[in-house]
Amino acid sequence: MRQAGRYLPEYRALRARHAFLELAKTPHAAAEVTLQPIQRLGVDAAILFADILLVVEPLGVGLEFAKGEGPVIQRPVRTEADVARLACVDVASAVGFVFETVRLVKRALPAHVPLIGFAGAPFTVASYLVEGGASRDYLATKRLMRESPDAWRRLMTILADVTAAYLNGQIAAGAQAVQLFDSWVGALAPDDYRELVLPHTRTVIDALTPGTPVIHFGTGTAGLLPLLREAGGDVIGLDWRVDLDAAWRTLGDEVGVQGNLDPTALLSPPKTFEPAVRAILKRAGGRPGHIFNLGHGVLESTPVEHVKALVDMVHELSAR
Amino acid sequence: MRQAGRYLPEYRALRARHAFLELAKTPHAAAEVTLQPIQRLGVDAAILFADILLVVEPLGVGLEFAKGEGPVIQRPVRTEADVARLACVDVASAVGFVFETVRLVKRALPAHVPLIGFAGAPFTVASYLVEGGASRDYLATKRLMRESPDAWRRLMTILADVTAAYLNGQIAAGAQAVQLFDSWVGALAPDDYRELVLPHTRTVIDALTPGTPVIHFGTGTAGLLPLLREAGGDVIGLDWRVDLDAAWRTLGDEVGVQGNLDPTALLSPPKTFEPAVRAILKRAGGRPGHIFNLGHGVLESTPVEHVKALVDMVHELSAR
Repeated sequence: MRQAGRYLPEYRALRARHAFLELAKTPHAAAEVTLQPIQRLGVDAAILFADILLVVEPLGVGLEFAKGEGPVIQRPVRTEADVARLACVDVASAVGFVFETVRLVKRALPAHVPLIGFAGAPFTVASYLVEGGASRDYLATKRLMRESPDAWRRLMTILADVTAAYLNGQIAAGAQAVQLFDSWVGALAPDDYRELVLPHTRTVIDALTPGTPVIHFGTGTAGLLPLLREAGGDVIGLDWRVDLDAAWRTLGDEVGVQGNLDPTALLSPPKTFEPAVRAILKRAGGRPGHIFNLGHGVLESTPVEHVKALVDMVHELSAR
Repeated sequence: MRQAGRYLPEYRALRARHAFLELAKTPHAAAEVTLQPIQRLGVDAAILFADILLVVEPLGVGLEFAKGEGPVIQRPVRTEADVARLACVDVASAVGFVFETVRLVKRALPAHVPLIGFAGAPFTVASYLVEGGASRDYLATKRLMRESPDAWRRLMTILADVTAAYLNGQIAAGAQAVQLFDSWVGALAPDDYRELVLPHTRTVIDALTPGTPVIHFGTGTAGLLPLLREAGGDVIGLDWRVDLDAAWRTLGDEVGVQGNLDPTALLSPPKTFEPAVRAILKRAGGRPGHIFNLGHGVLESTPVEHVKALVDMVHELSAR
């Protein structure tokens, strides 16, 4: 959950010399960022440093990272004609730098630390393409879904194909698990998700190289959990807005769960978040299918020592 | 759900002549705004035109509505000292203009159209006071909750008292039901809600004049429903991120439910939202405890004729 990122001074030092996209596209630098939290925090796994929109840049939509404003899509995709204009992507040649990053990280990682690859799920990636960037209400995305369902399905089909190829490329390069981030899918009504999103997410998951565990993550999904489960994944990622045990009961025993600490908890001293950490571990009940994690990414203003204290706390409490 | 507001041309005409706060504080104008959607749309109830922050202005925090930016609190409440500095409010004299608006509306409304009063719930109001305005992540609010729980409880106690007096004043002036808006409570983990919010919301609801139905509303609450129910209310307001029937089963038969159409649905033509309207009515199953409504407020860019079509559609489909 963004364990490599702006809250780390060593990351900010690299960013002072490289623009975000340049960093993500330069394998030795991206590998260095991926490894930073491993050395600093002692986490159990590494997660690739990349961005969910890298894979859509070759579609020809004009990706930029404006200073302090996050991603900007210069030519948003809002009509059938916009969808038709999207370029065909040969993923291997377009984002080969990501696969190279994976290879470099794998070479540098200690053998006992697995590497998790990742991609954005079709809905979340589509929402950036349609809105032109981050959004609060997803008005343009939902209008496209409702008013031009055929164009929407075509867009989602393209994204599902690209995403599956992208993740399989990461797996081939050495990623031992992959996480599919449908971060903003909680904006949808369950019926809309079922009809217009679920089939495409399932297409991605079904197309992945067999034998690689898949973590399927979203936020605000308390009302969508049975449908996320239906779409697929070996582990469902939970945010902090649900009780972990209730959510796991809803999902069933056949899947694992990941989560579910509120990332804002890490802004305050360890003694203030220890009760929440204990509560999550208690709700998980020591069952092997639980991956302790934040419910979303580490926030930029998080003190590094709080993250380190969390990792140690989880290790210590879990060992008992 | 903001049925009086910026999407109505007759509201925009009034706003061209009056600043927002001036409009809300001028009883004959606020009454006129309250009545606009009744005449135009044929809805079954009127909801008072006001703002959830009117009641906190007398606390001395400096309320402003900046053009296009929503509410701004000039002196945010972030420390124990800030909480201690809040002025004691005599609600009746401080917001008597709202009670006068209620009386004017009641005089003008047809006898068969009830008037719903409303207030912000303590958490949601506190979030504006602490953040200084609208927020995405509620970082300052959550820090206050975690790092200064005593100050937080004092703030919530003050807000609960003011809110109960404010709603009882509306009831005394003629409001036949009240709605408590905990719009942003879905940002919280269930454990945090249980410990730091629920008792204060319950204080408000328990203090209300007996015999007046209470609608308890929030968004993003799919994982909080049992706790919202525990806090109180005769009707629980749902957003669109849950299936209405599943949510109602979770809540139990003793409460009614309100909702749950995605407000973005009204941006597109009626034929595109008719299936969702039918699905909601079907899930409600014609049980008397369902109030059809949007899952949150009407969006500014909504065409008025779509709202009118929705009202007619619900009336027609419900009559069958």
